[in-house]
Amino acid sequence: MKVALFGAGRIGKVHAASIKTDPRSTLVAVTDVVSEAAEALAQEYDIAARSPDEILGDPAIDAILIASSTNTHSDLIEAGVAAGKAIFCEKPIDLSLERAHGVLARAGSHDKPIMMGFNRRFDPNFAALKARFEAGAIGKGELLAITSFDPAPPPVDYIKVSGGLYRDMMIHDFDMAAFLFGMPQSVMAHGSCLVDAQIGAAGDIDTAVVTLSYSDGRLATIRNSRRAAFGYDQRVELLGSEGMLQAENVLENTVVEANARGVTSAKPMHFFLERYMRAYGIEWAAFVDACVEGAPVPAGIQDGVNALALAEAANISLAQGQPIEITSALTGG
Amino acid sequence: MKVALFGAGRIGKVHAASIKTDPRSTLVAVTDVVSEAAEALAQEYDIAARSPDEILGDPAIDAILIASSTNTHSDLIEAGVAAGKAIFCEKPIDLSLERAHGVLARAGSHDKPIMMGFNRRFDPNFAALKARFEAGAIGKGELLAITSFDPAPPPVDYIKVSGGLYRDMMIHDFDMAAFLFGMPQSVMAHGSCLVDAQIGAAGDIDTAVVTLSYSDGRLATIRNSRRAAFGYDQRVELLGSEGMLQAENVLENTVVEANARGVTSAKPMHFFLERYMRAYGIEWAAFVDACVEGAPVPAGIQDGVNALALAEAANISLAQGQPIEITSALTGG
Amino acid sequence: MKVALFGAGRIGKVHAASIKTDPRSTLVAVTDVVSEAAEALAQEYDIAARSPDEILGDPAIDAILIASSTNTHSDLIEAGVAAGKAIFCEKPIDLSLERAHGVLARAGSHDKPIMMGFNRRFDPNFAALKARFEAGAIGKGELLAITSFDPAPPPVDYIKVSGGLYRDMMIHDFDMAAFLFGMPQSVMAHGSCLVDAQIGAAGDIDTAVVTLSYSDGRLATIRNSRRAAFGYDQRVELLGSEGMLQAENVLENTVVEANARGVTSAKPMHFFLERYMRAYGIEWAAFVDACVEGAPVPAGIQDGVNALALAEAANISLAQGQPIEITSALTGG
Amino acid sequence: MKVALFGAGRIGKVHAASIKTDPRSTLVAVTDVVSEAAEALAQEYDIAARSPDEILGDPAIDAILIASSTNTHSDLIEAGVAAGKAIFCEKPIDLSLERAHGVLARAGSHDKPIMMGFNRRFDPNFAALKARFEAGAIGKGELLAITSFDPAPPPVDYIKVSGGLYRDMMIHDFDMAAFLFGMPQSVMAHGSCLVDAQIGAAGDIDTAVVTLSYSDGRLATIRNSRRAAFGYDQRVELLGSEGMLQAENVLENTVVEANARGVTSAKPMHFFLERYMRAYGIEWAAFVDACVEGAPVPAGIQDGVNALALAEAANISLAQGQPIEITSALTGG
Repeated sequence: MKVALFGAGRIGKVHAASIKTDPRSTLVAVTDVVSEAAEALAQEYDIAARSPDEILGDPAIDAILIASSTNTHSDLIEAGVAAGKAIFCEKPIDLSLERAHGVLARAGSHDKPIMMGFNRRFDPNFAALKARFEAGAIGKGELLAITSFDPAPPPVDYIKVSGGLYRDMMIHDFDMAAFLFGMPQSVMAHGSCLVDAQIGAAGDIDTAVVTLSYSDGRLATIRNSRRAAFGYDQRVELLGSEGMLQAENVLENTVVEANARGVTSAKPMHFFLERYMRAYGIEWAAFVDACVEGAPVPAGIQDGVNALALAEAANISLAQGQPIEITSALTGG
Repeated sequence: MKVALFGAGRIGKVHAASIKTDPRSTLVAVTDVVSEAAEALAQEYDIAARSPDEILGDPAIDAILIASSTNTHSDLIEAGVAAGKAIFCEKPIDLSLERAHGVLARAGSHDKPIMMGFNRRFDPNFAALKARFEAGAIGKGELLAITSFDPAPPPVDYIKVSGGLYRDMMIHDFDMAAFLFGMPQSVMAHGSCLVDAQIGAAGDIDTAVVTLSYSDGRLATIRNSRRAAFGYDQRVELLGSEGMLQAENVLENTVVEANARGVTSAKPMHFFLERYMRAYGIEWAAFVDACVEGAPVPAGIQDGVNALALAEAANISLAQGQPIEITSALTGG
Repeated sequence: MKVALFGAGRIGKVHAASIKTDPRSTLVAVTDVVSEAAEALAQEYDIAARSPDEILGDPAIDAILIASSTNTHSDLIEAGVAAGKAIFCEKPIDLSLERAHGVLARAGSHDKPIMMGFNRRFDPNFAALKARFEAGAIGKGELLAITSFDPAPPPVDYIKVSGGLYRDMMIHDFDMAAFLFGMPQSVMAHGSCLVDAQIGAAGDIDTAVVTLSYSDGRLATIRNSRRAAFGYDQRVELLGSEGMLQAENVLENTVVEANARGVTSAKPMHFFLERYMRAYGIEWAAFVDACVEGAPVPAGIQDGVNALALAEAANISLAQGQPIEITSALTGG
Repeated sequence: MKVALFGAGRIGKVHAASIKTDPRSTLVAVTDVVSEAAEALAQEYDIAARSPDEILGDPAIDAILIASSTNTHSDLIEAGVAAGKAIFCEKPIDLSLERAHGVLARAGSHDKPIMMGFNRRFDPNFAALKARFEAGAIGKGELLAITSFDPAPPPVDYIKVSGGLYRDMMIHDFDMAAFLFGMPQSVMAHGSCLVDAQIGAAGDIDTAVVTLSYSDGRLATIRNSRRAAFGYDQRVELLGSEGMLQAENVLENTVVEANARGVTSAKPMHFFLERYMRAYGIEWAAFVDACVEGAPVPAGIQDGVNALALAEAANISLAQGQPIEITSALTGG
């Protein structure tokens, strides 16, 4: 399976490495608006840096991996569909929910796999939690709590084009909630600027709590902060009728030091590249499974729209100060 | 310091034992509407079972400890004030916020200590968390999360007279939030009946999530369930600008068993009598400190009104489906 | 049950408090070679300070609790036997194994309970470990590891009269090994002076490893240090054919602090008075059970001799640099 | 750097994968006495299966990786030296200490790196423990405890040619002790057959405790069992004058399940291929560093001889029932 990569930045490099680890897939081309970046990655992998049109027009290329900037995602998905490629696209589909609805309408009937890169579904810890939940370990799910704190806020210039915390950061947690609990009936959002006043000045928040209410009475809370002094905090806790499942942080190592100040373990792995390195590889293998073996796509376009719909609802809820119903107008159904 | 006990039930017995552990206080009388209960406790402690009027009229009695049923609390506080006694009263003041406001008005100028029994403030773990927070260990507080699950729901007959989950169960968590973060600007409540349909039929909920928003942007979430299969889950987590503090559960013992099924630790201590046994003793010592040494009362009538005001706001929020502002009309200020 | 206390020092005070917590036993007299100490304790408990002879000669006194200095233990046990008292004696019986053999011979047929104060058997964690082991949780026992580190060495003046590390400190661990695994076939001892050169100058060691070999092939290791910077380290680990049991340290509280330096839990409880406070109460209740209910004595004179025999063997092993067989000449059988 | 692999079995495949992950090294040839195994691996890596002589005689090959059976190691090391290759050799050098001395004598002056595959030195957890120890985190080392339990015993046919527990299994722990504490003054060994009577019938033990005594008074204990029902138990604990460092097990995942039976975490990673997968990669990179960058070899021939000398001493100690001095006659110095 021959793959072309759109985007040779940080996340593009991660995916390039993942492609290499699966013997069924080969990276054959790369493109990037920054031609130096494309050339450097092409040289490292001994492949060609090509233009988007060349890639899309090359019938020898089976799949495209979209890791370019967010504002190119929806156009590239549609171009990939038109070119008959299998498509792996980093989240989100688009910052505009309306535009994402359009992609869903146009890409829905594509006969090749389209997969959204919700990497956390493939984290072995979260995946093990879900597997045990679905195996009935704790009975019926009741209360879900997702904690997601970044080690430090991104530069304000990034914040300004990010689409805001709910679409940029919490979108992963919205997808995790959907992964475990499906889609809620309503969303109630709270948010503040506590970490960096510049983020507030840019019109965004850096600290947030969202509650999801489900039609059968289940409840989920998501907590986000752009800054945790101890590093990347990524936890899921799920109370059920017969017990509770927790996926705890992955620590940098297992060394414990006891001294007069207490008993100290290592910090959580610093950030997403470290914590989710294994997840990226497993995620890619799942995409290849879908392309080569006909396995079901674990996270498709509708999942991408769903997470975006929850983020949109959270934005409206924050602005209006009240819960927002999740309607088919939001999910594009 | 001579103490008379109102109420010889389960919690009355706990307090009787606490009184005995502090050499500065002596239990000298007990009263209960169930005279057999009063007689039994009187016999155990070699004291007299007396009537409320005898107790209140006896100038040799310095303090009364109110551990009778909730609907007697406000009357007894007022009677104790009239009789010039120091007063320790189990939470809540009253199920009626209006009635509690009346008690606050009438008892506010009492020249003896009046203390509300918010036992969790005296749990060594929560107290240590607060001490480190106030010592600046994690900088400025940002996100507070309180988890409080009971091992099993009480009988429905109890539920019917309990005042509902927010006033009966979450009131402890409202006080914990106030203890750590002060009073919020608004309350948003969610709740469901997932554990026992009879609880729903009685008009109450058994599963709840409440978000508190503070005027400076801080946020707090409280999660309650009436049923956790693994026992009594009592945790506090506090993210600050420079770190995070967590108070974890107290386990029944430190034994760990590793076998083919995994590595298993003990469950949390079963319920409040076990978990908070030490807290009850420390709590009583704090009351004696206030009476004997003139130390400040750690949790007074206003704190009792505040917790009740948050519960009232939660009830209104749940009914209306939107956040409720915490006004002085609620807190009786 | 009326009890007289021999010894009003630190451990005597602990036992006096334990006696009070059991409603079936009452402290009625105290004696101490330091009369001020006896008077102070007598005043606190509103009892009489009396002479040893008065106590032993008073038929109203049912039991004596020996918490005086080690060199008085064997004489007092024998005097108590002669006076027909039930006897609770702090470990060890004597520093001289020969003298302890004499006590065993003379006290063996006493018709009242004689119990040695091996407090760790009553620690709820070690007791829970033993209960699960005996319930078959991990199959047959194979490898036992006991870790016992003190927070800081005692004064050298204490070391000089202590009988040495094996008899003074590791004796608790020898009893724990006997409690879990019975008596070994041989003892191999290693020891060094690493903590305080004055301890070495006094002819003692402060760091030790002992291996116990059992006739059926089981093995046990005991590690001691007089100094652990993080406090009192008291752990037991037991590998069996079907799993492993560990009793971990009891921490000062459950607060965890995460910051840029790591994730820090509290230290273990500082020293034996804190760690084993609950054990002392449970231990006393077991003695009262034996006296009042006829329950079996959990740790008798033979157990005291056994622990001392292992310490004696360790001393010989250290001196000779080779393993020492545990014979009936050592255990007094 | 071009590498040829001797041995295409389980551990050979692990190393082949490691070679591929380092861009500075390329696997160019493989050989195995089982030609099918060599062919299969050759095909997977698109390289040639060649004879040992061809490999040793090919000047284009820079390094050989010896992962063939133990009885070939010493001959291949000497052949590699004669052929001027850099050499990476799996432990042990040889089952015969005398033969290993010979290799040391003949290979000592080789001008290319020779590295022994003591993989645990490269485990990130043990490496972090050592780094913190050497940085002074706990002051001077005093007591070292190494725990190493396998999930299940190997087939008895393997046991018969293994060289016995001390040379086959505990050799890793002897190296870990040397890694952290250097070489001891004496070795005292205990061992039993508790797991599988067939192992005893084959003249070997399956359960062992060894104590290492150092000339400055430090002590180390090593505990081995061929069978732990919960999996692969690999821990190091190091008490120092100012604190304690522990490297705990690496668990399969971070999921915790709480239910009526307790709070259960995952088991340790099953066995060495899982637990030390990362270590193998880091180990290989260290060898490439030595070859390409001139970095020091982290574990050389002398280290291999040292570990074997400790195993030999343990065998003698077990047979004689007394401690054995570590002399230069043992370490080949």
